[in-house]
Amino acid sequence: MLKPNSSNRLQLYDLAGAQPQRRFSPYCWRTKLALAHKSLAFDTIPWRFTDKDAIAFSGQGRVPVLVDGDRIVFDSWTIATYLEDAYPARPSLFRGDGGRTATRFINTWADTVVSGGISRLIITDILGVLDEKDRSYFRETREKRFGATLEAVVADRQARVAGFRQSLEPLRAVLAMQPYLGGEAPLYADYIVFGCFQWARCASPFQLLLTDDPVWAWRNRLLCAFDGLAQKALGFPV
Amino acid sequence: MLKPNSSNRLQLYDLAGAQPQRRFSPYCWRTKLALAHKSLAFDTIPWRFTDKDAIAFSGQGRVPVLVDGDRIVFDSWTIATYLEDAYPARPSLFRGDGGRTATRFINTWADTVVSGGISRLIITDILGVLDEKDRSYFRETREKRFGATLEAVVADRQARVAGFRQSLEPLRAVLAMQPYLGGEAPLYADYIVFGCFQWARCASPFQLLLTDDPVWAWRNRLLCAFDGLAQKALGFPV
Repeated sequence: MLKPNSSNRLQLYDLAGAQPQRRFSPYCWRTKLALAHKSLAFDTIPWRFTDKDAIAFSGQGRVPVLVDGDRIVFDSWTIATYLEDAYPARPSLFRGDGGRTATRFINTWADTVVSGGISRLIITDILGVLDEKDRSYFRETREKRFGATLEAVVADRQARVAGFRQSLEPLRAVLAMQPYLGGEAPLYADYIVFGCFQWARCASPFQLLLTDDPVWAWRNRLLCAFDGLAQKALGFPV
Repeated sequence: MLKPNSSNRLQLYDLAGAQPQRRFSPYCWRTKLALAHKSLAFDTIPWRFTDKDAIAFSGQGRVPVLVDGDRIVFDSWTIATYLEDAYPARPSLFRGDGGRTATRFINTWADTVVSGGISRLIITDILGVLDEKDRSYFRETREKRFGATLEAVVADRQARVAGFRQSLEPLRAVLAMQPYLGGEAPLYADYIVFGCFQWARCASPFQLLLTDDPVWAWRNRLLCAFDGLAQKALGFPV
């Protein structure tokens, strides 16, 4: 199924909230930073959870969906590997096959530990920034996933945030040795984990990180990357 | 400081228990599997925690210590990168610079989550396999680290092991997509994490993994690697 794209810029379907410029999906942030890393010009198309028809051409119902000419790619990991293979002359996201396979572990760690941990701290705040038409969909699907009301999920978050910070120790230990997961400069591994924090920053005023945490400093470096692509995004200055 | 090594085989100082052939250090296992991956012939020299004089030539007091001709290298991560750089024509441990940097994260994850988790489940069993002369040193240093008696550290382990298994979810999620962290074949990333399980297997009869866990199957594949190098080691058939 093809979606014609007459522009020579890539198009990204990007999750938005009630305000069209509020773009908070961690997976879409991974893709946006990967596109910036590859110096690929792209336009974003705001999309809401219930806009299933708008991306039906991709054969599934979630974003990110990337349209690159006549190529349609979805799922942030698949998009990253697509970009790496389709644009090999541009800066590498993985720096080799060994980097690609090891980064896959960082992706599963981020999805389980970081996204999982953050969602239990901010999910009611996410509900608060959603477009009106998405709210019941979001509450129903997430409450089913958690087996609890969203309000119960975030209960006692001030007490639990220390445990979340502790769970970041493997990242912190790497950052004690080098400025990025990618070494001296960021790679896709950094964008994977950063996407989780950018999701929180765009949707929630809750302070996840202490300002003396090396993870805070790393996040700030990534906020400033690509002329402040992430920093300029509508969010909360935490 | 040089330790002459007239043999053309590498020498590895390898932590041993009361039985000289009980070799349980997770860090030494990482190195032994890295050496096997590189098809480098090596001899091991049994070493106990209190044999500080025997490795004083390395300028520090912990194993693994690798002696390669007139080169002395210690710390499992440093040894892995040394082997990769010194033997570039042999099978790669990282498959490129991107692999090396991303694997560093897997190393910190294994050290904190996997080793940390396993130690809280088996540390009294480790005490039980130690050479008599190491026991008070081990108890004192570890109780100081944990701030509790070793018996208190492992209390309720049957109840806590489910949480440990849950903490392996990022590994399990990768193994749902590919047979090894390294992809179709193991790389150093696999040996890092496997070393933690081999540490447990050599020192403790406690069952860490359920037999229907993909992590169990992955561990079994690595037990069989290199003609059963790890499987043949003195340990517990769990």
